[in-house]
Amino acid sequence: MAAPPAEFALIARHFLPLAGPEALGLADDAALLDPPLGRQLVLAADAMVAGVHFLPGDPPETIGRKLLRVNLSDLAAMGATPLGYLMTTALPRDLPPGWLAGFVAGLAEDQRQFGLSVLGGDTVSTPGPISLSLTILGTVAPGAALRRAGARPGDEIWVSGTIGDGALGLRVLQGHLPADAEGHLARRYRLPEPRLALGAALAGHARAAMDVSDGLVQDCGHLCRAAGCGAVIQADAVPLSPAARALVMADPALLPLALAGGDDYELLFAAPPGAGIAALAAPTGIPVTRIGQFTEGPAEVLVQGPEGAPMALPVGGWSHF
Amino acid sequence: MAAPPAEFALIARHFLPLAGPEALGLADDAALLDPPLGRQLVLAADAMVAGVHFLPGDPPETIGRKLLRVNLSDLAAMGATPLGYLMTTALPRDLPPGWLAGFVAGLAEDQRQFGLSVLGGDTVSTPGPISLSLTILGTVAPGAALRRAGARPGDEIWVSGTIGDGALGLRVLQGHLPADAEGHLARRYRLPEPRLALGAALAGHARAAMDVSDGLVQDCGHLCRAAGCGAVIQADAVPLSPAARALVMADPALLPLALAGGDDYELLFAAPPGAGIAALAAPTGIPVTRIGQFTEGPAEVLVQGPEGAPMALPVGGWSHF
Repeated sequence: MAAPPAEFALIARHFLPLAGPEALGLADDAALLDPPLGRQLVLAADAMVAGVHFLPGDPPETIGRKLLRVNLSDLAAMGATPLGYLMTTALPRDLPPGWLAGFVAGLAEDQRQFGLSVLGGDTVSTPGPISLSLTILGTVAPGAALRRAGARPGDEIWVSGTIGDGALGLRVLQGHLPADAEGHLARRYRLPEPRLALGAALAGHARAAMDVSDGLVQDCGHLCRAAGCGAVIQADAVPLSPAARALVMADPALLPLALAGGDDYELLFAAPPGAGIAALAAPTGIPVTRIGQFTEGPAEVLVQGPEGAPMALPVGGWSHF
Repeated sequence: MAAPPAEFALIARHFLPLAGPEALGLADDAALLDPPLGRQLVLAADAMVAGVHFLPGDPPETIGRKLLRVNLSDLAAMGATPLGYLMTTALPRDLPPGWLAGFVAGLAEDQRQFGLSVLGGDTVSTPGPISLSLTILGTVAPGAALRRAGARPGDEIWVSGTIGDGALGLRVLQGHLPADAEGHLARRYRLPEPRLALGAALAGHARAAMDVSDGLVQDCGHLCRAAGCGAVIQADAVPLSPAARALVMADPALLPLALAGGDDYELLFAAPPGAGIAALAAPTGIPVTRIGQFTEGPAEVLVQGPEGAPMALPVGGWSHF
């Protein structure tokens, strides 16, 4: 009988410390989980490929965290609470020394921060770039999940946090834009902040919600199509971080990129006037800003520039194909 | 507002027809699922990369099915019933025309055969080879799941179906071995048969179980290590298909490959003598064969050749690293 091959040693060394008790030591064919009583399951999956979703030079500590956070952001958009995740990694054989240890250390930190652990997964080799896939499980009270459909004409459009940091941060890391002194934009690209507490607070109050991944304007269009209504966004109401604002002030042509560039992972949601959104959000400490209104009419998003005229948005969001 | 990019059209055209009602039209941030009452959840994930887990020339119809069946085989090994799955696909931009339609058509056929549907997923582009990841959900009665640990010295070793077809089929497809007239070996490599009915029948009866993916001998070693006992397998008791037997008769050096080559996806399990395994299996129509015995001693697998002498097994199973 040959010794267990390197694959098992790798899993035991790196992934076993991430595993919760339901993972059965990552030594069985599957995980076993008692679903929390009286809750619905919420399930999402995202994939990331080196050179497409993260930069080959990104610190390994942030890469797994970004994948986990992108999935946690999907839970936040549904108003759900995290339960656990499964992850598959396709890794080249010539990974730099220490890469996997850093990758796992970042995940461990986020597991502590967000209160979940690995349930299972698979580790394989690839002749291509690093390819990662993560499936997340969460739970929500029955019927309380936030959905994309549900906005009505007259509802207010709200967004959490600040918009554009991720898209600008990517350009900073690519060397196309100057970095801010605190590294805020690059950090926001690498480590999105899933708005779990806000999503939970909005469940039962917001009429529709999603997270902003493809770009604010394109994603607002998704809410419009799901609801069969239009939307007007006031560009100067869209919250920008100080670092993003400084770039846009220096070059106003960057504003469309901020509004349509994507990688924000903020919550975008609809609420009727008087829903008390600011008061609901206050205990979470997550800023929320009203940026426009849903309207009667076709499923189109009109962005009004600072002078009230429609803004041209040449960037149509990010598409893989 | 730009039209939805090609990615959404691709998902709507190809993946939406695979989606169950819990997938919410693949239009929300996550799926919503009421977990079946009084059942435990069983969760597994597997990844496949072109050129590593399947051949670039494999028909697209079989590739998604193989990934699904490999995961279904993990459920079978736990005695679980399928509930649904999430899948991520990283696809090159230069896929041959019709590839994706064939890939999805194969999945649709297996969804019907095994009674499950897509809950969610993600589709991204990659500059590398096709990379697929699938997370499967199943359920099992509380406490009834089959586990890898639990074999005891004196327990019989059983295996379902036939062993070696997958490993030999791969060599046939690679042109290293002659094909059988019916294409049995190639088909077994491309389309493993998850033994769901047998796994369910064994729950509560077998003491330990797993599916054979890395090779019969290596996987039997996993059962030994989990239980802290040894095992003896009689090589000539291991069931071979007529096509595999013909190859081994022509070249006895192929027997170790059959026993240790992997890609079988048969169930390997431990049962005490007199457990009535044959009677339990009979209603499923899945053949089962007793191939040896667990023993006192270190966690090693001894394979006795046709003359009773220990067989040398130069192939130590498949390792990715």
